[in-house]
Amino acid sequence: MDILYQQGQKAKNASYKLARLSILEKTKGLLAVSEALWEKREFILQENQKDMMNAKQVGISKALLDRLLLTEKRIFVMTEGIKQVAQLEDPVGEIIKMKKRPNGLQIGQKRVPLGVIGMIYEARPNVTADAFALCFKAGNAVILKGGKEALFSNRAIVQIIQETLLKIGLPEDAVQLIQDTDRKTTLDFMKLHKYVDVLIPRGGSHLIKTVVENSTIPIIETGVGNCHIYVDEFANCDQGVDIVFNAKTQRPGVCNAIETLLVHESIAQPFLSKLIPKLKSYSVEIRGDQKVKILFPEVKEANETDWSEEYLDYTLAIKIVSSLEEAMSHIRCYSSGHSEAIITENYSHAQKFLEEIDAAAVYVNASTRFTDGYEFGFGAEIGISTQKLHARGPIGLKELTTTKYIIYGSGQIRM
Amino acid sequence: MDILYQQGQKAKNASYKLARLSILEKTKGLLAVSEALWEKREFILQENQKDMMNAKQVGISKALLDRLLLTEKRIFVMTEGIKQVAQLEDPVGEIIKMKKRPNGLQIGQKRVPLGVIGMIYEARPNVTADAFALCFKAGNAVILKGGKEALFSNRAIVQIIQETLLKIGLPEDAVQLIQDTDRKTTLDFMKLHKYVDVLIPRGGSHLIKTVVENSTIPIIETGVGNCHIYVDEFANCDQGVDIVFNAKTQRPGVCNAIETLLVHESIAQPFLSKLIPKLKSYSVEIRGDQKVKILFPEVKEANETDWSEEYLDYTLAIKIVSSLEEAMSHIRCYSSGHSEAIITENYSHAQKFLEEIDAAAVYVNASTRFTDGYEFGFGAEIGISTQKLHARGPIGLKELTTTKYIIYGSGQIRM
Repeated sequence: MDILYQQGQKAKNASYKLARLSILEKTKGLLAVSEALWEKREFILQENQKDMMNAKQVGISKALLDRLLLTEKRIFVMTEGIKQVAQLEDPVGEIIKMKKRPNGLQIGQKRVPLGVIGMIYEARPNVTADAFALCFKAGNAVILKGGKEALFSNRAIVQIIQETLLKIGLPEDAVQLIQDTDRKTTLDFMKLHKYVDVLIPRGGSHLIKTVVENSTIPIIETGVGNCHIYVDEFANCDQGVDIVFNAKTQRPGVCNAIETLLVHESIAQPFLSKLIPKLKSYSVEIRGDQKVKILFPEVKEANETDWSEEYLDYTLAIKIVSSLEEAMSHIRCYSSGHSEAIITENYSHAQKFLEEIDAAAVYVNASTRFTDGYEFGFGAEIGISTQKLHARGPIGLKELTTTKYIIYGSGQIRM
Repeated sequence: MDILYQQGQKAKNASYKLARLSILEKTKGLLAVSEALWEKREFILQENQKDMMNAKQVGISKALLDRLLLTEKRIFVMTEGIKQVAQLEDPVGEIIKMKKRPNGLQIGQKRVPLGVIGMIYEARPNVTADAFALCFKAGNAVILKGGKEALFSNRAIVQIIQETLLKIGLPEDAVQLIQDTDRKTTLDFMKLHKYVDVLIPRGGSHLIKTVVENSTIPIIETGVGNCHIYVDEFANCDQGVDIVFNAKTQRPGVCNAIETLLVHESIAQPFLSKLIPKLKSYSVEIRGDQKVKILFPEVKEANETDWSEEYLDYTLAIKIVSSLEEAMSHIRCYSSGHSEAIITENYSHAQKFLEEIDAAAVYVNASTRFTDGYEFGFGAEIGISTQKLHARGPIGLKELTTTKYIIYGSGQIRM
């Protein structure tokens, strides 16, 4: 706990300095870091190899190994990402509104950095550089707790960033890494609300759950997505097939891919006759409810757990419903509040779905795969928030800030 | 836990209906409730008398008894408050921004209710009606957990609201009261994140701390205020005296009153010579640091705990500092991030203080007592947030909403 407290204190001190940096200083810092990471890529690759060797020894899955791996190309993409963040509009200092009150007080609301951000994430070392760049650009210090599999890689990246900042006279504690990767340290980190203003967990549902249950720091939940598409009786069938196919197969391992398809019974036969062969050609496993089984007996039967599962894989649950209302109550029951879509040409159905479905992003006639900071035009993102407080949807630079009221007086006292 | 779960479920169901109510329906509901509470004031007063008798028996403090007491006049103020909320602008449904992306997707951000709000508060029964009115106007269901001292009064008020809503065909579960007032139920309530979207504790620092440490529901912290005024060497002395006097004595028991005064050494003698007699005429107890003691030996000596204490009383700690920097680092160390003020005629000092002090409200030349939803022009408030996530400063109707993205597509899929 002692080292953690020291890191917290250092981050808080750095945050005061970071909040005062000019846009030019921040740009200079980001470009210098981007350059240094590229120059020292051999060192990063060499440290990453240590992680890879350890990971292979403990027999980690192939998918995880791929996430852990850094290559020269991946480091290039990482450094380009930092340069892009440097070019984004700086959110800090914007006066959102300012009004004069009857008593002459001039009250303004100003955008300011959050302060110290904590981030807990899993095995992707590129997140380390990303998270630093976004937090730094928004004027925040960040304390990172990466997965133990990536410790050597993360240490190398953070070391290069700190050295670079120090060299050009910027606060090196803008980024710090928690090097103790045991569970107790992680739990202690979640209680560091004295110094950490916001905690952002990025990872699977188990990580998110642990953070929700243990953190005393305000958190921004990210990422769990049990997303649905409802194909209405008034859908354009071909458009619907393309959208569902895209939302399931374009990248099934991410949170905005769909897991369950709901189809109106009056369109189910023709629609599924087009969709299912297309999905099968991509080896998508279909799990259908009883009505689907009647139409397509070869399909595997879905059970209750299929409706709540986030497969993140080439698997799709399908349920036939008899009305928009039934579709919406299924979604209300099982949705994780991430992204939900309706396919319809009916004006009232589209409006009703947009109005009544309670999720971070609600679509008409488009793929759920667009819920993403880049696709939304934010330029970058640090995750997708599925909670309602503070940030809902993609978390860009603006969501990494808060506001404060500034009040210009001329001697006013309260009567 | 079973009853709590049922209340949570009912609130969630009600929240879907509330989110769809028109402005007219909500206005009708609020006016009907206001009227019913006034009509049934005898019943409320009679139930309140039961609380008062119980409270007197257990020997509750006079201040607390006064908070608990309802009179015909207080009920009138309460019902007028509800009518005022009915007149405020409805925040729900506003499209904050909407843009077309290069691929034709039209992406908008729309203001929507939070859903279900939980509120834990202490002995003031008028909060019960207030909280309902604000949550209802913003389209939310609310579950209330009031202090056990006010149980009969709260039950009467909630019963009248529910009956009124039911009679005019609005969801009666828009407001529910947790009637079990034991500690275990309160702790269970804090874990009800399955149904409750946001929890707002209103009360002393002990309550806030318990909620921060135990809640798995996202919370909005309210109210703890260790506020400072710094009288700069370039202050207008008379203006400063008036402001400090106002900020300490106009209503010392509230969170935006000041607890510590910082004075620059070069102005301390003349400034304090004017201020201290004025404060003494109001029986304000002064606790000064050693430098203050040298100038005014009759003053009580402050010790370390005085700098962090929220007196909420006629007590003021005073410290003499030798620079703006020293004042700012004292504030950084002890501030609860509520309201902080500088008194100065120096442009650069004013700007530096506004820029660098990290609090919900930062003032130049005005009393901290203005940090308040009414004074800020919000029309109403449910508390003052001192946290950085979601809402910072007075929590009005807008802060009781969230946003969702709505996306109008025409068949877009992601490449």
